[in-house]
Amino acid sequence: MYTINLAEKLSRFSAHWTPHVVAELNGQMVKLAKIKGTFDWHHHEQEDELFLVLRGRFRLEFRDHAEEVHEGELVVVPRGVEHRPVAEEECHILLFEPAGTRNTGNLVNERTRDQLERL
Amino acid sequence: MYTINLAEKLSRFSAHWTPHVVAELNGQMVKLAKIKGTFDWHHHEQEDELFLVLRGRFRLEFRDHAEEVHEGELVVVPRGVEHRPVAEEECHILLFEPAGTRNTGNLVNERTRDQLERL
Repeated sequence: MYTINLAEKLSRFSAHWTPHVVAELNGQMVKLAKIKGTFDWHHHEQEDELFLVLRGRFRLEFRDHAEEVHEGELVVVPRGVEHRPVAEEECHILLFEPAGTRNTGNLVNERTRDQLERL
Repeated sequence: MYTINLAEKLSRFSAHWTPHVVAELNGQMVKLAKIKGTFDWHHHEQEDELFLVLRGRFRLEFRDHAEEVHEGELVVVPRGVEHRPVAEEECHILLFEPAGTRNTGNLVNERTRDQLERL
């Protein structure tokens, strides 16, 4: 029941592709991440995933098209749909997804973050 | 899988205290609302509720304290906790909560909106 300032939370970390948890409700988590570069193609078997851009912009690639997502815009990726975020410049995003969602979805590799830090 | 621009969605309605649905995922809804004035004290029996300020600011009153919530800030109200939003000037908020959440919680009155418009 206390106010969470997203910019202040974002100032506490700098690593790219490393979601940090800032809130949890109804079995879902609110995560913040800084992204830059090209992520891996992946999907989430059971989880829909929301991306909201807080600063900058990125391109969310699907197999059949891509979406440019700017500050103040969001996209929902339904479960099962392959996607790949690409950010030419650093971009700050808010993620909303079930608590157990793995950042790399069906993949486990050097970018997998199964233990998320809480801010 | 298509980009949703929050400012554009907000431009489509003007009524206060009338949440509009802009996205749904994992049984949860993303809603937008414009608020001004003092709402009713209420709680949600089964649902935690997230308020994120997109423009302006409001005060979220609890029985034991109040939080001033500014643009770029969020608050989670746990289920069962009485609360009352108060906005001295118009404030634009994003709500994240289970699909069936009633805006007036345990109350049913002239402000209850059980049929939400989708934008």
